[in-house]
Parts: sequence; C-alpha cells; structure tokens
Amino acid sequence: MKRDIGRRLLMKIIGQEYFTCRDASTNSFNQDLRRLSEEYCFGEIWSRPGLPPSTRSLLCIGMLAALGKTSELRLHVGGALNNGCSVDEIKEILLQATIYCGLPTGVEATRIAEEVLKERGITFDAVAVPQGA
Amino acid sequence: MKRDIGRRLLMKIIGQEYFTCRDASTNSFNQDLRRLSEEYCFGEIWSRPGLPPSTRSLLCIGMLAALGKTSELRLHVGGALNNGCSVDEIKEILLQATIYCGLPTGVEATRIAEEVLKERGITFDAVAVPQGA
Amino acid sequence: MKRDIGRRLLMKIIGQEYFTCRDASTNSFNQDLRRLSEEYCFGEIWSRPGLPPSTRSLLCIGMLAALGKTSELRLHVGGALNNGCSVDEIKEILLQATIYCGLPTGVEATRIAEEVLKERGITFDAVAVPQGA
Amino acid sequence: MKRDIGRRLLMKIIGQEYFTCRDASTNSFNQDLRRLSEEYCFGEIWSRPGLPPSTRSLLCIGMLAALGKTSELRLHVGGALNNGCSVDEIKEILLQATIYCGLPTGVEATRIAEEVLKERGITFDAVAVPQGA
Amino acid sequence: MKRDIGRRLLMKIIGQEYFTCRDASTNSFNQDLRRLSEEYCFGEIWSRPGLPPSTRSLLCIGMLAALGKTSELRLHVGGALNNGCSVDEIKEILLQATIYCGLPTGVEATRIAEEVLKERGITFDAVAVPQGA
Amino acid sequence: MKRDIGRRLLMKIIGQEYFTCRDASTNSFNQDLRRLSEEYCFGEIWSRPGLPPSTRSLLCIGMLAALGKTSELRLHVGGALNNGCSVDEIKEILLQATIYCGLPTGVEATRIAEEVLKERGITFDAVAVPQGA
Repeated sequence: MKRDIGRRLLMKIIGQEYFTCRDASTNSFNQDLRRLSEEYCFGEIWSRPGLPPSTRSLLCIGMLAALGKTSELRLHVGGALNNGCSVDEIKEILLQATIYCGLPTGVEATRIAEEVLKERGITFDAVAVPQGA
Repeated sequence: MKRDIGRRLLMKIIGQEYFTCRDASTNSFNQDLRRLSEEYCFGEIWSRPGLPPSTRSLLCIGMLAALGKTSELRLHVGGALNNGCSVDEIKEILLQATIYCGLPTGVEATRIAEEVLKERGITFDAVAVPQGA
Repeated sequence: MKRDIGRRLLMKIIGQEYFTCRDASTNSFNQDLRRLSEEYCFGEIWSRPGLPPSTRSLLCIGMLAALGKTSELRLHVGGALNNGCSVDEIKEILLQATIYCGLPTGVEATRIAEEVLKERGITFDAVAVPQGA
Repeated sequence: MKRDIGRRLLMKIIGQEYFTCRDASTNSFNQDLRRLSEEYCFGEIWSRPGLPPSTRSLLCIGMLAALGKTSELRLHVGGALNNGCSVDEIKEILLQATIYCGLPTGVEATRIAEEVLKERGITFDAVAVPQGA
Repeated sequence: MKRDIGRRLLMKIIGQEYFTCRDASTNSFNQDLRRLSEEYCFGEIWSRPGLPPSTRSLLCIGMLAALGKTSELRLHVGGALNNGCSVDEIKEILLQATIYCGLPTGVEATRIAEEVLKERGITFDAVAVPQGA
Repeated sequence: MKRDIGRRLLMKIIGQEYFTCRDASTNSFNQDLRRLSEEYCFGEIWSRPGLPPSTRSLLCIGMLAALGKTSELRLHVGGALNNGCSVDEIKEILLQATIYCGLPTGVEATRIAEEVLKERGITFDAVAVPQGA
C-alpha cells in the first residue's frame, strides 16, 4: 500500500511520460533501488501531511542544489511546477542557495532550472544590462 | 539602508542577546565578512518578498543539513522558531533531508535540532519502543 | 518484522549499552527517524545476504570518511570490530580513503579510529621516526 | 619499482586498451599527476596485502559514489569486475550507498553502473512493476 | 559603481566574447543572480586590493576543484591565464588539490584544465612512459 | 630523502612543539599514514618549486575551507603565518571563500582563523557597528 501511494506521488512529480519509461526500464539490477525509492522516499516521506508537496518540492530544489546533484535537480524543478510552485518561488530558492552554498552552486542550479523551464515553454523577457562596462 | 534592513532580519533570527554579543565582538578581522553577511545575505536575499521568512528558515535548515554546517544549522533551528515555524515543520524537513542527503546527515541534524529545542524549554514525550529486539 | 531484524542488527553494531540508552531517549521528535533507520537502513539493507556484515562495516567506514560524518564514523569503527573486522582491515580502509578523499580526510578519520580503538583497550606499539629531520 | 607495480595494478583495473590510450596521451602537463597516481595510489596502497583488490574495488565504488565522482566511478565499476567482484556485490554497495549518502547519490551511481555493465554485454531481465499505480 | 567595477573584472576573466553572450542571455529569470554576481563577487571581493587577481584566480581553481564545480573551473582556468598566471602555476595548484582533495578530484580537474589549455592553442610535449609494465 | 625534506617542511608549518608531539605519538596504527603524508604531501608536493610555500599555504586555507576540514584548517592558518603570509592575506582568502563556498563556510572558517590568530597573540581592534538596527 505504501508503495502504491509512493508511485502515485512520484508520477505527479516526474510526469506520466517519464514514469512510464521508468517502469519499462526497471530490471533485475535496479529494481530494489526503485522499490526503495517508491516505498521509502515517496511512500513514507512525501506522503506525510506535515508539509505540503509544494513545500517539499522547494526544499528538494534547495537540498539538491546544495548537494550538486544536477540530474535530480532537473527532475525536481519540473516536479515543483507540477506540485504548484511558481517560477518566482523557484527563482527565490536559487538566490538563497547562492548565498548559502556559494556562487558556483547558484550559477549551475539557475542554468539547469532555466533549461527545464524553457523546455516547458515558459519564456523570459530579455533584460538590458548597464551601459559602459 | 540595505544593511539596516539586513541587521533587523538577522536580529529576528539569532535573537537580541546573541545579536548584541555579535556586535560586541566585531573587529578589524571579521568586520568585512559581517558587513557582507548583513548586506547581501540578509539585506538583499532574506528581505525579498518572494518567499516569507518562515519558508526561508525551513529552506536554510534543509540546505545547512545537506552541507553539514552544524553551527549554522544550530542557529537556524532557533531562527525557524523565531520566524514562526512549528516544531513539526522542522521535524519534517529533517526527515526529508534524511532521504535526500543520507541517514548520517539526518541523524546529526536531528540531534542538533533536539538540543536547540530543549534549550528553548520545549519538551518531548518519551516513546515506548517495540519489545523483543 | 523488518523492524525487529533491523533492531537486532543495529544492537550488534552499536553495542547493548548504547542501544539501551538510545531506546531510553526515543521521543516524539526523533521517533520517526529512528524507526526509519531501524526499518530501512538495518532491516532492509544490512540484512541483505549479498554482502556479509563485516564487508558492510568496512564500506560504511569508507563512505562515512568520504562524507566527513565523524560521529557516525566513530560508531561504525566500533561496529566493524563487533562485526568481526580486524584492526588491520580498518587501517587499510583509512589509507585507501586518504588517497581517494584526500589527506585531511584520512588524518581526521584515522584520529577518530585511533580514539575508538583505544577506548576498546587496544594498544599500539610506539614507532621510532627517522632521525635528522 | 613501486611505479611498475602500480602500473600493472592500474592496467588490471582500467583494461589494456584504456591503459595504452592513457600512456599515449601522457604529456608535460599531466605527467606528474599520472606518475603520482601510479606510485602513490596504486604502487603504495592498492598493492598492500591487507585487503584484496576485490575488496578495494568495492570500497572505491562506495567512496566514489559518496564523493559524486562519476567519471572515476565509471572506471571502477569496470575495475571491480576485472578484480573478480560480482554484479550482485556491486548492486549491494550501491543500495548501501543509497541509505548512507542519500537517494540522489544512489540513483546517479546505479545509472552509471548499469551503463558500464551493459557496455560489458551484461544483460538484465526486465521486471514487472505493480499494477494500479 | 560597484557593479561597473565588477563587470569589468568579470569581463577580464571570462573574455569579451563570452561576456557579450552572457549579457545577451540575461533575462527576468537570471538577472538577479547575475547582478549579485557582478556586485558581490566581482565588485566587492575581486576588486579588493589585498590579493592580486592572479592569486585570486589560483585560489579559485583550488576551491572549485575542491567543490567539484567543473563548469566554473573551466571558466576560471581560462580566467587564470587572462589574469597572468602561467600554465605551470595552474599545474601546481592541481597537484596540490590532488593531495588535499583526493586523486579523483585531481584527475577530473587536470582533465578539464588540459581541455581549456588546448582550446587556447597551448600544446604539450608527449612524454615517454616507463617500459615493462 | 624525500621523507626528510617532507618532515622539515611539515615542521615549518606545524611548529617545533607540535611536530615533536606528533613524533612521540606515532604508532603501529598511524605510522603508514604519517609516512605517506611526509613523503607525498610534503616531500613530493610542498617541495616543488613551482609555487612558494606562502602561496601553497593560502591555497590550503581556501581548499580546507571549501572541504569543511576544520582541524586541518586550524593547523594551516598557523602554518600560513609561519610561511610568511600576512593576517590580511588570510582574511582575503576567507572573504573569497565566502563567495565561492557560501556564507556558512566563510563564517566557520573566519571563526577558526580568528581563534588561531588570537592564540598567537595577535589582537584586533574592536569596530563600531551602525546605530539604529
């Protein structure tokens, strides 16, 4: 039961298409890890009512930036949007990560987030930069 | 102006007493770091309206746990309470950090948080553990 | 059932005395983390037959040194002895960690291991160092 | 002499083909690093009798996963097979790394290991996942 | 004013071409991070007279290697040359990073540095390796 | 011979008193690590002429701050002074580390450096902070 709850929460985060691919590629080497992820990460923790999924998504972005786990960060930027976070909130997390984890972390995470958002069709206005430098 | 805003936000987080001590110990070696902290971390980032201070506090706890910065984590657990977070929310962040950063991180951060909360006079009911192990 | 198996494996590693203290200090703040640790870390993973506990202990020492998790490392040096590892094997792990994680990591982990071993009553012969330096 | 011993151990790990390429690309910029690696890492440490190469390989996988060093991890998954480790043992290390270093680490390391194993012609049976999620 | 100083220092490090691209891609998502970088990193810190830019570049290479921030490291290897560091000095930093951060870090950073230097048209003499291994 | 050179460089860094204690505490558990440190870290790398010891000291401070290795950082702040670095240069490294590694790193490293400098009898003038915050 915990695993089913976990699988539904995971699907909300990574999207139907990616979820189906993931299931199709589950094999004897990776099955235990995937089952643990579904039971333990999503079934046990993400389902807890103490924090809503949107806050859990923002927290994931911050921690994954801190840890430098860029593949997972990519997934969770999309997951944050799926869980109802705004682009603005994502931007704020990354600015705070820049101060707490250092500028290289902030630059790397912002670049990844921007790629994910553009893949989602979100566009950003160009901004003029100061003259004379 | 940015520095004054920052100093007020910092004082809310670390408390009046610690803030006064900090000012008394500012000297020619650490003054630039402290000014930068007040201007950039608190004056620039913490003051931004895109996330409320309570969310910024929860995010700090997550990132500091991920980074293993235990002294700062200690400060921010208290800061989270000052910014209106509940004990339950703090507990939830630490459980999520356990999954994403590993059990040793979760154990270390939970121990630190428990110490801070007890220093604040918060008590926790003892819990019986399973028999027969 | 998984939790009971986990609790027995954990007790073997941390010792009867420490295990009893841990149970006595379980409370409403830390109980979920502790239950997860017993179920998932020890009940699910440590119990798997694919690697013997002695190898899992050596692996823990290596990973905890790499992660810089000194409190957990302290526990697992003792746990390695409880699981049948020799002092020599522990020394070898730390030398390999020195190369792969850097000299500061190796120095810190070796100091911690030496403290734990001495607390266990294990003594080491003094060694003369080269003259003339 | 230590360097020759080291070079032979390194060749066993990375394979004859990769070893020859490496020698061909040694130049005035990277020669000191490569010599140190051959003398210090392989000649001094890997040759020590206190742990067999198979155990050293499993330890490397664990530490490299913990450190997030994905290129080196890729090399050492192949090296573990060359040193007599089984696919099952590699899988077990990665599951333990998941608990101790966090799920993102476990996912990243398992993906890399799976790629290496497939490049070696090792196949894995597909596994059906639970219905209804 | 601080921002202009910062932009000039940044341009010296990343080069005119990359700097112009960067300005062209500044948008509503990344503008705050970029402004902070120009003001805080370059305008405030890099401009300080206590260390010359060449020393700051060598320090960046060491810290970015330690942090595993490979994209930023790539930028700063080029920046070091722009700030007057020699290829030899860059090589020395990487050898010291190998000892202090571990061999995988040294190998990864050296590979990145070699790529950047070759893109700059710097060539290295091939070196013969010991026979008989 | 490399080991003797290394031991002399190490003694310059950690001081005569600490060096003598270290020799007195060398035993069968830690002797290999210490020998490796003397041969490879100091004998091979620190002795290389490509960077002067003062620059190597500044680099160590930056990397150890990045890695969070506080015990080693403590040693190398003193070592930097022994190798001719100024207090001002040490302060500059720590400010740059704050930007590149994050504010918690900068705060922790600055606190440690301040302790070491005070133990050395170096005093710092108190600095008045802005009124009204």
